[in-house]
Formats: sequence, structure tokens, C-alpha cells
Amino acid sequence: MGERPVPERREVLGYLRERRNWGRWGRDDQVGAVNLVTARKRAAAAGLVRSGRTVSLSREFPKTPGPGNPTPSQHWMKTVPRGTGGFAADFYGTFYHGWASTHLDALCHTWDEQGMWNGRDPAREITFEGATFGGVEHWREGIVTRGVLLDLPRHRGEPYVRQDRPVHGWELAEIAEAQGLRLEPGDAVAVYSGREGWQAAHPDRAYGPEPRPGLHASCLPFLRDHDVAALVWDMMDLTPNGYDIPWSVHGAIFAYGVALVDNALLQPLAEACREEGRSEFMLVIAPLPVVGGTGSPVNPLALF
Amino acid sequence: MGERPVPERREVLGYLRERRNWGRWGRDDQVGAVNLVTARKRAAAAGLVRSGRTVSLSREFPKTPGPGNPTPSQHWMKTVPRGTGGFAADFYGTFYHGWASTHLDALCHTWDEQGMWNGRDPAREITFEGATFGGVEHWREGIVTRGVLLDLPRHRGEPYVRQDRPVHGWELAEIAEAQGLRLEPGDAVAVYSGREGWQAAHPDRAYGPEPRPGLHASCLPFLRDHDVAALVWDMMDLTPNGYDIPWSVHGAIFAYGVALVDNALLQPLAEACREEGRSEFMLVIAPLPVVGGTGSPVNPLALF
Amino acid sequence: MGERPVPERREVLGYLRERRNWGRWGRDDQVGAVNLVTARKRAAAAGLVRSGRTVSLSREFPKTPGPGNPTPSQHWMKTVPRGTGGFAADFYGTFYHGWASTHLDALCHTWDEQGMWNGRDPAREITFEGATFGGVEHWREGIVTRGVLLDLPRHRGEPYVRQDRPVHGWELAEIAEAQGLRLEPGDAVAVYSGREGWQAAHPDRAYGPEPRPGLHASCLPFLRDHDVAALVWDMMDLTPNGYDIPWSVHGAIFAYGVALVDNALLQPLAEACREEGRSEFMLVIAPLPVVGGTGSPVNPLALF
Amino acid sequence: MGERPVPERREVLGYLRERRNWGRWGRDDQVGAVNLVTARKRAAAAGLVRSGRTVSLSREFPKTPGPGNPTPSQHWMKTVPRGTGGFAADFYGTFYHGWASTHLDALCHTWDEQGMWNGRDPAREITFEGATFGGVEHWREGIVTRGVLLDLPRHRGEPYVRQDRPVHGWELAEIAEAQGLRLEPGDAVAVYSGREGWQAAHPDRAYGPEPRPGLHASCLPFLRDHDVAALVWDMMDLTPNGYDIPWSVHGAIFAYGVALVDNALLQPLAEACREEGRSEFMLVIAPLPVVGGTGSPVNPLALF
Repeated sequence: MGERPVPERREVLGYLRERRNWGRWGRDDQVGAVNLVTARKRAAAAGLVRSGRTVSLSREFPKTPGPGNPTPSQHWMKTVPRGTGGFAADFYGTFYHGWASTHLDALCHTWDEQGMWNGRDPAREITFEGATFGGVEHWREGIVTRGVLLDLPRHRGEPYVRQDRPVHGWELAEIAEAQGLRLEPGDAVAVYSGREGWQAAHPDRAYGPEPRPGLHASCLPFLRDHDVAALVWDMMDLTPNGYDIPWSVHGAIFAYGVALVDNALLQPLAEACREEGRSEFMLVIAPLPVVGGTGSPVNPLALF
Repeated sequence: MGERPVPERREVLGYLRERRNWGRWGRDDQVGAVNLVTARKRAAAAGLVRSGRTVSLSREFPKTPGPGNPTPSQHWMKTVPRGTGGFAADFYGTFYHGWASTHLDALCHTWDEQGMWNGRDPAREITFEGATFGGVEHWREGIVTRGVLLDLPRHRGEPYVRQDRPVHGWELAEIAEAQGLRLEPGDAVAVYSGREGWQAAHPDRAYGPEPRPGLHASCLPFLRDHDVAALVWDMMDLTPNGYDIPWSVHGAIFAYGVALVDNALLQPLAEACREEGRSEFMLVIAPLPVVGGTGSPVNPLALF
Repeated sequence: MGERPVPERREVLGYLRERRNWGRWGRDDQVGAVNLVTARKRAAAAGLVRSGRTVSLSREFPKTPGPGNPTPSQHWMKTVPRGTGGFAADFYGTFYHGWASTHLDALCHTWDEQGMWNGRDPAREITFEGATFGGVEHWREGIVTRGVLLDLPRHRGEPYVRQDRPVHGWELAEIAEAQGLRLEPGDAVAVYSGREGWQAAHPDRAYGPEPRPGLHASCLPFLRDHDVAALVWDMMDLTPNGYDIPWSVHGAIFAYGVALVDNALLQPLAEACREEGRSEFMLVIAPLPVVGGTGSPVNPLALF
Repeated sequence: MGERPVPERREVLGYLRERRNWGRWGRDDQVGAVNLVTARKRAAAAGLVRSGRTVSLSREFPKTPGPGNPTPSQHWMKTVPRGTGGFAADFYGTFYHGWASTHLDALCHTWDEQGMWNGRDPAREITFEGATFGGVEHWREGIVTRGVLLDLPRHRGEPYVRQDRPVHGWELAEIAEAQGLRLEPGDAVAVYSGREGWQAAHPDRAYGPEPRPGLHASCLPFLRDHDVAALVWDMMDLTPNGYDIPWSVHGAIFAYGVALVDNALLQPLAEACREEGRSEFMLVIAPLPVVGGTGSPVNPLALF
């Protein structure tokens, strides 16, 4: 497929503003595009399970400091005697947003000057106690839906997405078509960009600090057109995004109400899809129900 | 059913020692009874999903200090400006074992004087860096299996399990039989003891500090006989256990390799089972993959 | 000395508002009454050191959960091998305000409806990144001044201050006079109320939760009249304070700019004063320089 | 002064082993060289205070991640309403050893294959609950003594100590002599190496990761010969130390029982010494009394 012109700034702003889902499920809705995951959708997703194979889409809990992990997660151990036996217990501490931890972003996580999801004002909703709108607890029943994998390295015949060649929305559409996948409302889309390959090719850098390769703002209409409920990705927004806007693809949170799973581990999923000969699966995302939380570390599971 | 004599101490020690699963899946096995959850078992569990209803079995992330929560979990907020927009992020810190947090216990969590799971020595395996045997990362692909609910309040016609009338193994068998449930290897058993009812009836106490009602050591052979893979419960071991042993039902971790989900929220599951007219469901437990972790806070999901 | 009538509410509000030090050291001052501790004052304080005896006024770092310590401080250990040797390191985490930790309150710590120190608005000055006015870093050079002990148990002939007999300002004046102490601007006043005695007499309670004995609002004019720079106390404000105001003695922070050291350990200081035959000493308070911090855990040292 | 041959490995091991202070204050002593700070010594130190000037020797609490701060300290804020007013409170969390935080090392902090201070075995003494020997609580009364500054940049006429020209023990002796300082048992020695100058000259690096300039193992006999109680330094051990030993100058902890204050901020002290025309002062170090702690973040104060 030939190159297409990338959208202009006003077009990208149009994606985020003219097409946004504010009010679509009511002005006070805090569930967003996850509303598209109906009970019927969940039941159909379970119907995709045949072999019973499960794949974890989570990276390891990121304890090790480094340029790609400037605020490492904490793991502190303890043993406690108890009669003639005992037990071991531990503390987990995590400032999980960023590039190191596989985590879900709640609807309160991002905003631009027009506001948070459904037009709420972050100056009012984000408090010292937590978010009073769009907290992760609104997804406490989990996100259980059909997942589909879009595999960039396989499609491109290159090991990873490069800085100078970001993922565009039309490429996602091409991949889906090439794989015979028909996206349906409420699907979760897993976009595999080959982060492990990128890291192996850049041993002296860490994926995270700018610049970093990833998805172009042109992916926004793809998400909106197909009523995607959740985006699961290993590389994130192409950075810098080239438009002098605070958020490009991460704008899907506040504009469309999409659930993002950042820093997913997708290489094993890509392998499983190849081995299973299919790109769709049941996906289960089970966030910790933190009232007012801006997201949650998660271990998403794909079931075949 | 009439009262039965409770087992003597030597019998209970026999449950933990003579019937233990050490070596059953190899001397170096770190997966335990979760080995019984085969791919076939997972596929069959998915086959139980019909209505697509999901129920979270997790209590809220326990931030509020109190006698039932002596080491409250931490939730710290932050906003960060970003161009004309911004984002909110937060830190979660949790010392999750205890009575407040819904969490999974890893195989390294408990031991008696004969050792940890598979006979390992906690003095060697529990290090400052984490557990070197039986860490929760060995269940990183999740525990996805058939779940069955055993509902004590419904069976007894009483709102909650009382201190003076613990749950016995034979009662669990009776409940299963009365509900027409046939337990199979690799099942997860959810034992609902009515913790919310207990709490409502004891407004000046907190579930947790001794004494506390719960499951009697006589439940151990029930778990072993039926090759239960996971026990999900809202009340835990009857405490004091009456035998001067460090662990009674929690001994199923090191003796049988059973995965325990402590402090689950089971009232909504009990309601769902009543409404759905069945006591079996697909259960998904997705622990955070903390290398060397003694467990994980989790949000188990039941799917109908 | 006979009982005196306690002040009326309007009088207490007058202490906090008519007599406040706002603007006294400039409208933008962030040092408060610690301005009264001049270099000359510090040098004179050093001149009080004769025997070289030092007394720590800090309780132990409060790790143990309990009703008097609802958010226990964290101490997590680690060892790290290093060639043929190694080292041990640890993490300290503390939410130090409250009743358990000996700590210094910064000028940004408290406010009433008229504002923070110097009339600043907490809604503007308290941010997710820290306080932008009145942070503890403004005392980074330490508070080094003359300390004087006012010993309630000794004066009253009773082991501790009781709930029904709070410490009044006129009693502090009496004690000073009886001990021949003449308070001077910039002094630190240590008020010993016998917390250890209270605790021993109330083994089933913890000092902290309401009600708790301590200093009455009538102490405010004592602090103001004598231009006290710092108040070091083991019991804090009598609670409830009886006036339906958010802060009584803690109002000295925002009204006068006084540095408070809460939950000091004063029994050993009282013993030292008796043994040394004097009630004045050099006091050194060295807060951690946390930019924007609302205070600091401290280990205040008294030198004789 | 001409170059001298650096000591050989066996000589350095001799410094650490043949000259160690084990048993000097009893086999069970946990105070170490701080025993040399007598009450008389403290009183004499107070006698050095004339102008009343105070200088903080602490860097700011290191919140900002970066290569020189791989495990940044945490500062989390909160406001809490209280009637018509309110308060702000914060959490401090710090893994303070390393290169970023000004902190005191306790006697339990380091060891080599012959053991910890007084020959104790770290495998026994370092527990999950803290150190059972040599914890920082043994210095809870503070370290109050004479401090003397040895100013390398001033002596060398160079802005900072370079990697290829470490600080040697004989140079420290020369500086003391040149300044007419006579070291006495129990003194605290502050060695200023110009860390700020080094950092300014190396904007793309951070002081911390290897290699880093600092004090050579030849400083050990200087510390021992003069019975130094505490070493306060901005640069630390020259790294690599060149001897294939785990600790060179940091070996003074376990060999001599010396208290180290790592990462002190000494530029302001050097300026003050120049301005005051003297290199001696009263030094006050007041660690948090953490039972079993391996050290403490501190704000050491120099008083002139």
C-alpha cells in the first residue's frame, strides 16, 4: 500500500473533538466505550475459547531502576514466625503509569484543555483522595470481550516499528482486512509493534523517554470508526506526536472513552496467534478496584 | 445432618502430612494444584458462560485504617500538566496479606516445621529479594477454571457462620450434594460464609483479629479428596484453630499446593448464583506477575 | 492557685485573629516566629551547654500498628552482596503527622477559614507537588535555641494531665515563675504533660483518638505574650477543644508562626532537668529539607 | 607535595584488619567510635559557637528521578478538611542509601568477609525486621561534637576532585596542618571534594554510578590515627577502589566503628568557613531513632 498524507493538525483536533463520545451514554457516564461490551458480547467472547490456551499480556512487575523505569516499583519482603511454622508476606508499591508497567488507564487519566471524559473539569474531579469522576472502580466487573491482534512486524516483514515509520490508522485497517478480521463494536484491539525487537536493536536505550516510536494520531479514527472498547499496545503514541497537542492516541481516553492497556507484553500473544492460526481470542482484564484510582496494574489474559 | 465428632490433632496432622501432594508434579514443581487446571479444563470453564454476566469477587482496595485494617493500603494522587492538557497518576502501595484485601496466596506464603510446598526450606527460599521458590509468577498465565459456590448462609438458613459453629468439611460435601454439584479435579471452590452479615451483626468489631469464625481444619480432606485447585473464601480459617498448629486450612497451601483467594467478596456472587439458578461459573484469577512475590492483590471475576 | 474561668469562644477567636503575627516579618515571610531565633539567640543557647549531656526528645520510629498508630511507618530491609562482603539498606516510609511520630509541623500544616500563615489560601498553596508556601524547607538551617521545660506532673504532683483538667496558659506562667524561668523571645517551650504516665494508667486505650487530654486554648496567649518560637509537647491540644473551632493550640502555627514539635518524648528530659537542677538547655531541631513538605519527622536534641 | 606511592592491597587489608577497633569498647558495643564523643567533648564543641551562624549540611530530599537517583524518594501530599479549616499532611518514603540523599550510615550498614562491626555475622544480625546489632538507634542521643572542615578545592586550587587524582590520607593531614588544625579523638571530619563543581563540569553525568572520584583507601589510616568519630563527605570512596575489595573508605564503618554521613552538602560549609575565618565548628547530627535501622536521612547542622 502506498504512503498516504498524514492528517493536518485541524483534522487531528477534529478526531478528538468533533467525533467524541461525550454524552453518548449519558452526561454522567463513567464507563465510556466499555459500555459497548455487553453481556452478549462477553458470552460471545467466551465462545472463542477452544484449545484452552492462556497467554499473559503482562510484563513482569518492574522493580529494576533504569532509564526506562525512573520510578521503579517496590517489592519488600518479610517473614513472620507463627508457632512452629510461619509465613512470608510482602509489600508492593507502584507508581504504575509510565513505560515500565503493564497497566490499564482509567477514564480520568488524561485530558486536554476541553476537559476530561464527558467534559468534566480535572481541577474539580482530581482530588488528593482520588478521582471523583472516571475512576477505575467503574470497571470493577472487568473488561471481558473479544480481542483481536494486529501484528505490525508480521505485516511489515520488519522486526519492529521504527521512529520514522509510525503505525497509521489505515495500516491497522489493512492488517485487519488481510487477516480477514471484521472489527465489531466493543472489541479490544491489541496492536503489537515489536517492542522486544526494538529493545534488542537499541541495547543502549530504553523504550520510554522521547523520542519513541509508536502509533500515529491517524489511528484515532480507526478506533472511533470501529467502536473499539479497549486498546492494548506494547508501543504507545508516537512521540513527539508532531502536532503540538498534549495527547494524540492517548486522547482516545477522554474523547471516546476507550480503555487503554499500556506497555502490554504482546510478543507471546503474537506467537500464540501464529501457532493457533487465528487472531481473535477471549480477553480478560481485571483491574484492582481502587476507588478514585487513575488506572491499575493488570495482568490481561488472552484465552484461545 | 447430625453433628459429627471433630477430628483429633493427630488426624489433622495426618491431613497435612500423610496426604500431601509433595512430589506429585515433580520435586521442583512450583505450580501445585493449579497443575490440575488443564487447557481442557479452561476450555470447559469457558463453556459455562451463557448469559455473559460478570461478577467481581474483590473488595475495594482497602485504604481506610481500622482494627480490621491495621496496615492500610496507600493511594497517593498526583496531577501533571502536559501542554494545554495534563494527566492524573497515582501510587498504590499495599501490604496485602491479612484480612482487608482480596488477594491470592502464592505457594511460598505459608509453612510449618516440615517446610514449604514440596518440602522446601523457608530459611533458604525466602530472601530479601523475594521468594526463590513458589513465587506468584508461576501462576502468571492466570488461574482460569470452573468455579463452584458453596453457600453456607443459604444452606444453614442463617445469615453468617458463627464462631461456635465453624464450617466443616462434611458440610461442604452436603452443600455440594444438595445443589447437585459434582466436584472435579482442578475446580475452584468458593465458600461463602456470610462475612457481610457477620460484620453487620458485629458493628463494634472487625473481621480479622482473633477470635474469628470460619472454616474448620476438617475442610482439609474435602479439598484434598476433590483435588480442588483453588479455594476462594470470605471468612478464613476458624481462629483459634483449636489444635495448636500454625495453620489449619491455610495449610492446604504448603500441603496440597492449593491456591487461596483470601477475603473474597462473595455476597454478590451468592446473589448472582441465586438469580442465575446455578452454582457453577467460569472463574478468572489474574495475579500481577511479581517475581518472587508471596501473592497478589487480585480482582477475581466470575462469568455466567 | 484557684480555678479561673476559661475564655469564651470570642476570646479564643481573638487570640487567633486579633493577635496574629501576619505581616510582622513581611507579607511573604515563610519563617514565622522562628525569625525570633537570631544568631545571637543561638549563640546564647550554646552557652547553656555545660555538662555536655544530651537527651533525645524523639519517640521511636513508630512501626507497630495499633489504635494509636493507624497508619504505621514502614521499615523494609534488604541486604545486597558486594564482592566478598555486602551491605544492608532499608526503606523508611512515614505518614508522620498524627499521634505516633515525633515530628515538626511546618507553617503550611494547618489553617482555618481565614487562611494559612500570613493569610495565604490553602487551595492555592497546597499542591500535589507539595506546599508552595510555608514548606519545612524554610527551616532547613534548623531551629537552634534556648529550650525551657515546663513540667506539669512535677508542678501538679500528679503523674499526668487528665482529660478533665487540661493545661491552661496561666498554669504555664505559674510553672515558669515557680522555677524562676523568665521566658524570652525566640525560646522553645517544652510542655511535659506526662504522656507515659497517662498511657500506663490507660492500658486499654491509646493516646490519640478523641477524647484526649492536653493543652487548653488558653495557652495561646501564653505563647503569643512570650514570643515563643517553638512548642515541644508530648500531649497536644485538649480534644475536643470545647469551642467548635478547627484548631485551638495548633492554631499557633497559622496565627503566630510557631513551630510545633508534636508527640515529643519528654519524660527523659524531665528526668534530666531534675538531675541537672535546671530547666533550660540548648535545643536543636534539624528537619529533613523536603521542599514543599508539611513538616518532618525529627529527633530533637536537648543539650545541658 | 610530591606524589607518594599508593598502598598495596595487603596494606589496605591491614588497615581494615590489623588496626580495627573490634573489642575496644567491649565485644558487644554498638556505638563504635562515637564512644569517643564524650560529654566533655560535646561541651567543648558547644564552646566553639560564637557568631551563632548555622549551616545545613543536607542536600534537598531527593524526589527527582535520574541516573544519580535511581530510586527517588517519595513525597505524597494530602489535604484534610477539619470543620471550617483543615490541614495538609504528607508521606515521605526513602530508600536513602546511595548517592542522592544526605544520610548517616549505622554500624550495621557494611561488612566484608570477616564480618560486621565487632565481628558480628550479617547473616544472623540482618533480619526482615531490621538489624539486631549496630542499628542506628544506638546513636539516638545524636552525634554532637567538634567538626573540622578539610577543603580539597581550596587546598588544591582546583574546583573539584578528579577521578584520576583521588584524595589521599596524607593530603588530609597536609590540609589540617596547613590550616593549623590539630585533630583530636572524637572529632568529626568533613571532607569537601567539590561535588557541585564536579557536577557543573559534567552536566551529562550524575555523581554516583561508577566510575566516580573520591577518597582513596589511603584515607583509612588517617581516620584511625586520629580517632575520628565521624566522616562527613560529599564525594565518597573512589570507585573502582583499585583493590578488588568490597569496601575501601566505607570499611571504616565495620573496622573502626566510624559514623559516615554520605552525600553531605559541603559547599555552603566551605563558604562559611572562609567567611568565618575558621575551619572548626560545633556539629550536630540527629538521626531518626529507627530501631534496627541501617542509618537515617539527616540534616547535619554546623554551628559557628
